[in-house]
Amino acid sequence: MNFDYHSNIFTKEKVQLANTEEYLIRGGRSQFSKLASALEGIKEIGVIGWGSQAPAQSCNLRDSLQGTGIRVSIGLREGSSSKKHAEAEGFTEANGTLGEMFEVIKRSDLVLLLISDYAQSILYKKVFASLKKGATLGLSHGFLLGHLRSINEYFPSDINVIGVCPKGMGPSVRRLYEQGKKVDGAGINASFAVEQDYTGKATDYAIAWSIALGSPFSFCTSLEMEFRSDIYGERGILLGAVHGIVECLYRYFVDSGMSKEQAFINSVENITGPISKTISHKGIYHVYDAMNDEDKSLFKTAYSLAYLPAKEILQEIYDEVASCNEIRSVVMTTRRTAQYPVQDIDTTEMWRIIGTRVRAQRDTRSIDIHPLTAGIYIASMMAQIDILLEQGHSYSEVINESVIEAVDSLNPYMHYKGVSYMVDNCSTTAKLGSRKWAPRFDYHFTQNTLAKLKGSSESPTTLSDTASNTIPSDASSIQAFVEHSVHSAITELLKFRPSVDIAVT
Amino acid sequence: MNFDYHSNIFTKEKVQLANTEEYLIRGGRSQFSKLASALEGIKEIGVIGWGSQAPAQSCNLRDSLQGTGIRVSIGLREGSSSKKHAEAEGFTEANGTLGEMFEVIKRSDLVLLLISDYAQSILYKKVFASLKKGATLGLSHGFLLGHLRSINEYFPSDINVIGVCPKGMGPSVRRLYEQGKKVDGAGINASFAVEQDYTGKATDYAIAWSIALGSPFSFCTSLEMEFRSDIYGERGILLGAVHGIVECLYRYFVDSGMSKEQAFINSVENITGPISKTISHKGIYHVYDAMNDEDKSLFKTAYSLAYLPAKEILQEIYDEVASCNEIRSVVMTTRRTAQYPVQDIDTTEMWRIIGTRVRAQRDTRSIDIHPLTAGIYIASMMAQIDILLEQGHSYSEVINESVIEAVDSLNPYMHYKGVSYMVDNCSTTAKLGSRKWAPRFDYHFTQNTLAKLKGSSESPTTLSDTASNTIPSDASSIQAFVEHSVHSAITELLKFRPSVDIAVT
Repeated sequence: MNFDYHSNIFTKEKVQLANTEEYLIRGGRSQFSKLASALEGIKEIGVIGWGSQAPAQSCNLRDSLQGTGIRVSIGLREGSSSKKHAEAEGFTEANGTLGEMFEVIKRSDLVLLLISDYAQSILYKKVFASLKKGATLGLSHGFLLGHLRSINEYFPSDINVIGVCPKGMGPSVRRLYEQGKKVDGAGINASFAVEQDYTGKATDYAIAWSIALGSPFSFCTSLEMEFRSDIYGERGILLGAVHGIVECLYRYFVDSGMSKEQAFINSVENITGPISKTISHKGIYHVYDAMNDEDKSLFKTAYSLAYLPAKEILQEIYDEVASCNEIRSVVMTTRRTAQYPVQDIDTTEMWRIIGTRVRAQRDTRSIDIHPLTAGIYIASMMAQIDILLEQGHSYSEVINESVIEAVDSLNPYMHYKGVSYMVDNCSTTAKLGSRKWAPRFDYHFTQNTLAKLKGSSESPTTLSDTASNTIPSDASSIQAFVEHSVHSAITELLKFRPSVDIAVT
Repeated sequence: MNFDYHSNIFTKEKVQLANTEEYLIRGGRSQFSKLASALEGIKEIGVIGWGSQAPAQSCNLRDSLQGTGIRVSIGLREGSSSKKHAEAEGFTEANGTLGEMFEVIKRSDLVLLLISDYAQSILYKKVFASLKKGATLGLSHGFLLGHLRSINEYFPSDINVIGVCPKGMGPSVRRLYEQGKKVDGAGINASFAVEQDYTGKATDYAIAWSIALGSPFSFCTSLEMEFRSDIYGERGILLGAVHGIVECLYRYFVDSGMSKEQAFINSVENITGPISKTISHKGIYHVYDAMNDEDKSLFKTAYSLAYLPAKEILQEIYDEVASCNEIRSVVMTTRRTAQYPVQDIDTTEMWRIIGTRVRAQRDTRSIDIHPLTAGIYIASMMAQIDILLEQGHSYSEVINESVIEAVDSLNPYMHYKGVSYMVDNCSTTAKLGSRKWAPRFDYHFTQNTLAKLKGSSESPTTLSDTASNTIPSDASSIQAFVEHSVHSAITELLKFRPSVDIAVT
């Protein structure tokens, strides 16, 4: 499903992605001069909440809109513990940019509702009632639409409803924006959606919001396709799948006789290091293409054994999300967190002791890509891509939710400080989803991929005596990978991406 | 929620279970003489399907109803591969006891709809349309009610709708019935429910059906409470939880330096052997009570660290089931099995190699209960019990779904041939649910229970240097366990149970 749209202010660029055409909006600081006219009619932007996205978005917006006269304010619930953090960023009651959330909603022309998904499910009626007629409700996630669907309700008819959804967690949206001050174009891509255009200005508002966040490029979607791909993606390769993969691979390597440190290096460090870097700079295909024949052989075996198990779980996730089961589940689970607080996922020796030690001992030498790890990781990424394409998502959405967000935004956080630092910097919906689905991927690969590899050889992790000698790879599966339409689309989109690696600190 | 009811034929027995009173129906062969009058008006019982329950129920019914003139027939879909199996049991077209399913439904007075849950979700409209006015629809599971709820539909108003739900998989229903020919009273308990009483005879029909199946005792519930407790229970301690527990314990023991065989003995064999046997004969409390002080200390630590993590997942399961999410999920997953066949769960070394070897080398010596294994297993069982009681289920239902079915019906199957032999002898709904939730329990215990035990000691599995030296047990949690109301209720219900262990072959 590719969306066309009309902007009075911004120039859309037609781009050929595989066999489809899409219209992208290129970002960057040169576009900031158009923001004032694109946001005509908006005097105050109220950013509601202070979670993962709000600190990043409010600061980026304030910086980008300097000189336009548009005020960016923060709205928080009475007694919020986030107040001091907002104040530390310069949003204060004294300068009129900090207030009680419903007061801010009432006076704002553009309301960015960045409170948690769960809070949205509780407060949406009061929010809707507080919005001015003709105001614009901005969402950074289609979750609220999904929640309304699940209870047969909808937005009020006398407002604009738009979405701008950065394809990365809040901290990386801010981090890359700051890097973008030196390297123009650095940032996190975003999708935008116009769910309801009451005033006729909704499209330009959405694009302006996205550009002001520093998105290198923006692509159009719908809120429905957004919440499907977003909730699905974070349960898949972005968080849940990659966590499950490294847990079972680590155990597998240890069980095969590797030292625990080597096992960590060949699982976690492999993915967050050379595999992510290669994909980020040269695309998925290059990981495979650059291998020698021996490595290719093990890669192909692992890929063949992992693709279908990965796709099975991913299809389950997609169906759970599209049916709104997953949204009901998030709402119920969040309701229980008062009684059952969300527990840490990095309590085991693997993360607490081995991971910490490996990171402390890192040196500048690059590590080799392990073909087994690459095979399973990339098979999961490809399975995720295939399901999204089958479900009609655009290449821009597919590649951002399956590739770019993984290697440019999220994996660098796991690289810096382990799995919790990646998962728990994301939204509650994402944190819960990752915890829910990671174990499923783990068991599925352990039972259906690694058990078969192990059964085939005494020492399946070495290259001279690999499983690939005894388990033939599935030629059609490998051919589909090699000839996949996504590779050319990735190459095309790479041209629109920031030219800097995120600096996580 | 305790259900009272009136029977014209059978004598209900009032029993005090903790602080509640319930009415049970005692079964056994002496009751078979009442079946003909209780089933007055029923000339033919059509058993539809040939899955886990149908072979057992049809054979038991035919045996129990011998001499009554009531015919038991099997209805199968055209071209069913089960036809030869039904014929092998003596149900043939030639003798008029085998036919096309809708033909059998049309002519039967009591229709036992024992096709899979998924098939029910597909075929229910045609089934409803085929039933005679005033016929009785019999279900062995409340799933169909849950499915109708999830799509806002209900049963036709001109039929009886009853449930008789054996608290064990089909094969054990048949196996114990056959053992019951020698030892009166052997069998699997069942709950019964009267959802709709159109003719005024529904209660006696339900009780007669249950007694004819060989249920040692029957207790009353509703189809709603039945599907909640049943789907929840099999995802919990009956299948999903126990699978997750033994997987993570096995790994933990191996990681702590035990041989793989010893690790299997101290995890799987411990639960399926002495722990189950002790609970079956003397109740849960006796497992703890019989321990020496050192063992008690480690048990208490493990119990304290496992209870809340177990309860968190179990509450999530209960909410997913009660909201009908889990039912929607089963329907969607089953729909995908054509593309993604259900995979084996016993492919790993633990089950294929170690488990097989340990079973082959079993001797007659009994093994010692490992206090760590007992602590985690019993904490999960108690958490499951607590949630069911909090949700208003009767003690009979709670104890059957959390204790008796586990130790008398299911664990013996894992003991005999491993985890798949237990899980995959159950219904598709159960098989899928076990696969879905086992990994969640595994991760939760690994991250929140075992990681803390491991962190506290170099060798946390030995008794002389246990984690209990450094991690204090939670006194209130242990006190709640020791003083729990369920113990006296179990003692009471033990009196109603078969006096024989199931002989799995």
